[in-house]
Amino acid sequence: MSAAQHIHAPEGASVADSLALRPLIEDFNARYAYTLDRGNLEDWPGYFAEHGRYRITARENALAGLPIGLIYCDGHGMLNDRVRAILQTTTFAPRYLSHMLSGVFVKSIDAEGVIHAITNYMVLQTLVEGETRILQSGEYVDQFIRHGDSLLLKDRLCVYDSIMVPNSIIYPV
Amino acid sequence: MSAAQHIHAPEGASVADSLALRPLIEDFNARYAYTLDRGNLEDWPGYFAEHGRYRITARENALAGLPIGLIYCDGHGMLNDRVRAILQTTTFAPRYLSHMLSGVFVKSIDAEGVIHAITNYMVLQTLVEGETRILQSGEYVDQFIRHGDSLLLKDRLCVYDSIMVPNSIIYPV
Amino acid sequence: MSAAQHIHAPEGASVADSLALRPLIEDFNARYAYTLDRGNLEDWPGYFAEHGRYRITARENALAGLPIGLIYCDGHGMLNDRVRAILQTTTFAPRYLSHMLSGVFVKSIDAEGVIHAITNYMVLQTLVEGETRILQSGEYVDQFIRHGDSLLLKDRLCVYDSIMVPNSIIYPV
Repeated sequence: MSAAQHIHAPEGASVADSLALRPLIEDFNARYAYTLDRGNLEDWPGYFAEHGRYRITARENALAGLPIGLIYCDGHGMLNDRVRAILQTTTFAPRYLSHMLSGVFVKSIDAEGVIHAITNYMVLQTLVEGETRILQSGEYVDQFIRHGDSLLLKDRLCVYDSIMVPNSIIYPV
Repeated sequence: MSAAQHIHAPEGASVADSLALRPLIEDFNARYAYTLDRGNLEDWPGYFAEHGRYRITARENALAGLPIGLIYCDGHGMLNDRVRAILQTTTFAPRYLSHMLSGVFVKSIDAEGVIHAITNYMVLQTLVEGETRILQSGEYVDQFIRHGDSLLLKDRLCVYDSIMVPNSIIYPV
Repeated sequence: MSAAQHIHAPEGASVADSLALRPLIEDFNARYAYTLDRGNLEDWPGYFAEHGRYRITARENALAGLPIGLIYCDGHGMLNDRVRAILQTTTFAPRYLSHMLSGVFVKSIDAEGVIHAITNYMVLQTLVEGETRILQSGEYVDQFIRHGDSLLLKDRLCVYDSIMVPNSIIYPV
């Protein structure tokens, strides 16, 4: 076997599956990012399946297999609770957020039809009159299920490489 | 109605429309960015319809509904005038620009067939022998019309979150 | 001829060719970036054709037509040698890399069917407990050949605008 045959090994879905699914995932992510960039938090749980899970954790924890993260939400009840808590309590310095996403990697489709994919993300933060800085970079480790002609998140694990101000992470990314 | 049905509400075009239009817009934007990154300013007006409009404004102005912006061009006459002015007068420190775009969000298609879409952008600037920095980040708030098998800009409003050196914005982004 | 007809001139493949090829290139690049972000260097040569070439060079050298670069690999033998050298000798401070790609510009398809394309890249580096910084930004100047239902690199020239620590470039990007 020539080295050239390694091109998509040892990981990744078939080219056909990837070409079919990437546009759906990119469309989903563009809407998701728009919702968060606009601060429309009340719409955020709608991107998840009813029992969908959302977590944020540091890469060193993820690599060590540690389950503890900065945010853990399991199902719409907890997602909505989190949104309510943020909307009711936070007072933030005015700031603008901008999600930059890159490179949807379709890893596999499992026996239940769940789509496993990974997308790099970077969230830029600009304080009013301030410089634009990288607030957080990392990757979405996702499990999608089909929902009509689109997708819903069964699981989104945000593995961050770094965050500028760890304590400030109460907003989802 | 379950929360899951909110997935694409309250905003955004249908999934079918979005899947059909995003590749066209991404292709358009890749060419547009290439033209500006290369400094081929004389080709820049060609991305606009004859009466196309181009504006750059700060997000706080956009949110306040203020019409004043750093750049305002209405139609090919003004776009070409701007290009000529830049080419004739500027002396810049040598620098390289790189557009990074993310997340075409197809918002709607109106009754006249105009496509409303939003794309996050980030312009990196590198001075020779210097560090790469984020010169500007923001979003394109676009109106596209169809032109043959491609698109033209009826309106591109660049809403920036921040700019490194406000006075230096004479180049389009 | 109206200015609007300039939209895709003077450079770039036809819209039809670009729309057909961009998804293939984006899929390829997403896998490529995933492989490097994961540090799976032994899989990296598999993205190249058997006689594929890989180079990294500074933009000022590229513009001046200078052939000398930081990395030069010609064919799988040299690509594999480089991987072996890196894996055997390097001791790095722990760090995470994240590729952000944007804007596949399909430039042309030549008489031999080779696809010429350009993609902007940015590599973020995070040292453990450190801030996320832009390690390198630049563009892939690529030549792809078809391989089954996918692509292989005949040539990838990485033209960087800047690098944070020039001497540290021993990893491919």
